[in-house]
Amino acid sequence: MSGGPPAQGDPGRETASGRVRLRLLPDGRPPREVSVPPGVSVFEAASWNGVAVDSTCGGHGTCRKCKVRVVHSADGAGGADPVPVSRLDPRAFTPEQLREGWRLACLARAVSDLEVEIPALSTRPKAATVGVGRQVILRPAVQKRYVELTEPSLSDQRPDLERLLAALDDLEPVPDLHAVRAVGRVMRAADFKVTAVVVDEVLIDVEPGDTSGSRYGVAFDLGTTTVVATLLDLATGTPVAVRSMLNLQQPSGADVISRISATMLDPSALDRLRDAARETLDQLAREVCKEGEVSPEHVYEVALAGNATMVHLALGIDPEPLGVAPFIMATRALPPLLASDLGLRFHPRARAVVLPALGAYVGGDIVAGVLAAGMDRDRRLRLFVDVGTNCEIVLGDADRLLATAAPAGPAFEGAQIRCGMRASAGAIETVRLAPSVELGVIGDVEPVGLCGSGLVDAVAELLRVGLLDRSGRFVPGQEALRLAPELAGRLTTVGEERVFVLAGDVYLSQRDVRELQFAKAAISTGWRLLLQEYGAGEHEVQQVLLAGSFGSYLSPASAVRIGLVPGLALPRIVSAGNVAGEGAKLALLSVQERAGALALLEEIRYVELSDRPDFNDRFVDLLSF
Amino acid sequence: MSGGPPAQGDPGRETASGRVRLRLLPDGRPPREVSVPPGVSVFEAASWNGVAVDSTCGGHGTCRKCKVRVVHSADGAGGADPVPVSRLDPRAFTPEQLREGWRLACLARAVSDLEVEIPALSTRPKAATVGVGRQVILRPAVQKRYVELTEPSLSDQRPDLERLLAALDDLEPVPDLHAVRAVGRVMRAADFKVTAVVVDEVLIDVEPGDTSGSRYGVAFDLGTTTVVATLLDLATGTPVAVRSMLNLQQPSGADVISRISATMLDPSALDRLRDAARETLDQLAREVCKEGEVSPEHVYEVALAGNATMVHLALGIDPEPLGVAPFIMATRALPPLLASDLGLRFHPRARAVVLPALGAYVGGDIVAGVLAAGMDRDRRLRLFVDVGTNCEIVLGDADRLLATAAPAGPAFEGAQIRCGMRASAGAIETVRLAPSVELGVIGDVEPVGLCGSGLVDAVAELLRVGLLDRSGRFVPGQEALRLAPELAGRLTTVGEERVFVLAGDVYLSQRDVRELQFAKAAISTGWRLLLQEYGAGEHEVQQVLLAGSFGSYLSPASAVRIGLVPGLALPRIVSAGNVAGEGAKLALLSVQERAGALALLEEIRYVELSDRPDFNDRFVDLLSF
Repeated sequence: MSGGPPAQGDPGRETASGRVRLRLLPDGRPPREVSVPPGVSVFEAASWNGVAVDSTCGGHGTCRKCKVRVVHSADGAGGADPVPVSRLDPRAFTPEQLREGWRLACLARAVSDLEVEIPALSTRPKAATVGVGRQVILRPAVQKRYVELTEPSLSDQRPDLERLLAALDDLEPVPDLHAVRAVGRVMRAADFKVTAVVVDEVLIDVEPGDTSGSRYGVAFDLGTTTVVATLLDLATGTPVAVRSMLNLQQPSGADVISRISATMLDPSALDRLRDAARETLDQLAREVCKEGEVSPEHVYEVALAGNATMVHLALGIDPEPLGVAPFIMATRALPPLLASDLGLRFHPRARAVVLPALGAYVGGDIVAGVLAAGMDRDRRLRLFVDVGTNCEIVLGDADRLLATAAPAGPAFEGAQIRCGMRASAGAIETVRLAPSVELGVIGDVEPVGLCGSGLVDAVAELLRVGLLDRSGRFVPGQEALRLAPELAGRLTTVGEERVFVLAGDVYLSQRDVRELQFAKAAISTGWRLLLQEYGAGEHEVQQVLLAGSFGSYLSPASAVRIGLVPGLALPRIVSAGNVAGEGAKLALLSVQERAGALALLEEIRYVELSDRPDFNDRFVDLLSF
Repeated sequence: MSGGPPAQGDPGRETASGRVRLRLLPDGRPPREVSVPPGVSVFEAASWNGVAVDSTCGGHGTCRKCKVRVVHSADGAGGADPVPVSRLDPRAFTPEQLREGWRLACLARAVSDLEVEIPALSTRPKAATVGVGRQVILRPAVQKRYVELTEPSLSDQRPDLERLLAALDDLEPVPDLHAVRAVGRVMRAADFKVTAVVVDEVLIDVEPGDTSGSRYGVAFDLGTTTVVATLLDLATGTPVAVRSMLNLQQPSGADVISRISATMLDPSALDRLRDAARETLDQLAREVCKEGEVSPEHVYEVALAGNATMVHLALGIDPEPLGVAPFIMATRALPPLLASDLGLRFHPRARAVVLPALGAYVGGDIVAGVLAAGMDRDRRLRLFVDVGTNCEIVLGDADRLLATAAPAGPAFEGAQIRCGMRASAGAIETVRLAPSVELGVIGDVEPVGLCGSGLVDAVAELLRVGLLDRSGRFVPGQEALRLAPELAGRLTTVGEERVFVLAGDVYLSQRDVRELQFAKAAISTGWRLLLQEYGAGEHEVQQVLLAGSFGSYLSPASAVRIGLVPGLALPRIVSAGNVAGEGAKLALLSVQERAGALALLEEIRYVELSDRPDFNDRFVDLLSF
């Protein structure tokens, strides 16, 4: 025997950096090349990329249906098996089949480039269109199985739970105590005809009779301002009801910093803010269930996307370290939770998935958005911009993703703007000077203020007609009269400040323009530095996605004109809508997408702007329009 | 590409029946041969048998210290690797070491006979003597790690939880929400010097400063009559405090059947019985913590052994199917629970382990007892008898274990006996007729009745002196006078029944003798049929273990004389004490022992007596003494 245990060996292939490439060969369909992070299963890699592999358990190694053949490439790793035989493969295949490369796709981890044959499907998987036009194969974590059991007898004394589990031939869930309590009573009350409710490998309940058609989830977009809930039919992927409302935390502050400050000043504020978040979620939960005519007991899982502060507060986690340098989160990914941990009253053992966050200022809402946009599997170089007080920017493609956060300030929320207001009734949201003033006002009422998109439009139009110069100064009266005789009369002064009157009491001031310049410079410095880091020029960007509710209202033409986004052809600048909510929906509809969100944490590299020596120079350069 | 997925292959070696043999070669110590159920890890197999393998994580694949070398036997399976390389082995070993057979013992599953070299230990593991003289290596599921962390900075923005987890170099726990809530606050309050509390791969809390010396568990023996709690110091294995009390469920019935009946008659009884069990456990919990001067917050895990009915009731699971044919449990093994699921107020996320049950009438108390007695790893043929209203019998050795339950009736509890009473103050617990009447009375008071052990003694002594004949009848007065002149005067009649007066009003009646005969016949039919099933004779039994509190008081000589147990030399008949409680302690002290309890479910074969055609003949034959 040797003198002792050997020293630690090679850390192995698992830590290899860079993506691996898979050539998928689905039977009867064209081959497909995809790249995924190393270590991802062949099943997930195929599912993420819309290539369906047979499965009823959703990739948990229990149904043994996801049979694929790994083709040993001739130039392989010197005879080493690229995908070792897993613990369960010998149950699914003969030794000869194993030698031929047959493996269960859900347990076959891709750690090197592979070529994989995928047999024809025995059942046609359901799919839904979610996110930014993504076709997603439905594999919800919530599964139901209706079974008709044989009654126990003296010659078959199996415990109730074992009897039920043995009847679930494709799932091997771990029982929750709630299900253990239910199983005997429900079986006997329902003549041994019951439905097992399984969420992510946990048997959470046993229901009498056949309830397999009734399984729902709720996706929450927990925004600082607005909270949206979508009730989803998990059997079909269809949204059943959608509701939104203002976050009840609003009285404690409009933005995340003021809410964090509130918890620092008053020890009871954390509990109060947690309760306000929960009340918001619960109220929406009641509303969507009522509207969709779905019993809350039939909601078995929720997914929640929100920025790091919103998630911390909703879970009662002290957010203070997020708000002060060096800006530290409690955790990026949360463990599996119960919906009741968020104060939600659905099925008592309903689970909750919280989308993971990349950092204190690139939260789960952004990870959800990047997932919904499919940025990690698109070959085009795309730029994702979520405009707000804190602006999050993600740049990249299927091979590489970079992210950063830019402190844009509250200009887009209408704060710090003389006549600024939130995007609600009376807010000017569009401005055209063509050549007279044409205003779009929310709610078709008299204008009372200017919201973020109206602000961007107003400045862009004033730049176009020449009343603002490229440095952001209103031009002298004489020059204004020469350039735009019909508008020059609106240039006047309020106090000592020059302003442009839009309507009645609503005007745009010189300082308002300066505020927007700062915001725009911060954002544009952000994506320019990401482009530099990526090694691409502005015009190599093939699509700009404007995310968040603000992004939906922003005029692409105006955004380009003020330099907020790269100067692309307008059809390439796309309002992506509420992508955070779409990401939460994806997490509910597919366990593979959920795993994809976690993989994004390793995939996206965060680029810190504030410690870059060239940040300030860039910023000053970009103040001009 | 082939035409479709292949048909399912060989179910593989995992389902092979029978035990596998391991030859363990610990460095510098003599080789040791052990047999274990197939699929058990080499680490567990060694630990169960007292052979220590280096480990700090306790066998979870995280510390990478349990390095062993699997010796490829020359007559191996034709070149097939007897222990495939696991997912984590490449992180611990070089490719050459892997080829030489080095593996992590906790991930190396023994599915065929193996020879394994075990390096010398780098640290000396702690051990404790528990159960029936068993030396157990301490590997509690509760672990603590004190760490001094570097403070976060702009150049090290890792989230608090990741910072903590990275500092735990031998554990990789999943965080509980409670720990996520605590981590940031506690780190900052304690100057980044904190203790991580991990229970069975879950990070349940983060405590300020170094609390690593303070980790406790409570083992409960939840008996139908008596409940015992033992507070254990998990760092040393030492019992700190022990308390017992009567089960507060008593007013609802003395035995399991009457309590099950109570729930069937009154819909509120289940909740009431659940609450009574919880109050009993909670009261004992308070008492042991007070006596041991341990804060309940420092109790992180409990283990509970009880019969199936007690466990069902304590968890609020309807016990009705246990009480009526075909006698069905909800489940044999419960999922991991929280102590709060049992109503216990320890650390809010303290876990609970419930010892698994083999069947409705061979419960977790018996599995715990078999574990504590080490019956699955002893080469001697042993008979385990837990005498009570329901008598559980286990027979076997390291190679094979058989169990059955015999309905002995309430004679041993003193019920159905004219002057019967429970073993409390005033109960006659020993009887000697040598030649005058010598009585042992509990509490040194005047005798008021006869408890189970006194009943057995009285009958045994009357048989010895000849006042009872082998058929169980009091001999006629004349014969009595001839055989035992000093005692014959005590033979008289009460009503129409012959009795033997023990003291004052306390006597043994002819019907009492009949009751004991029925009980004895049931038990002795049980072990005789198990012996027949095993293929061994009565005198091949090498040890009889009398379990339970009744077993502790029973006189071995009397038990042999009335034929309750095989007629062995008296030193071979051992009172094993409260083995159910010892089994619960084992489950707290060692995760390997806990796994061993689960393995017993597969190892012990239950033999049903009631459907055997020869049961009644045997029973009638055995009514005689």
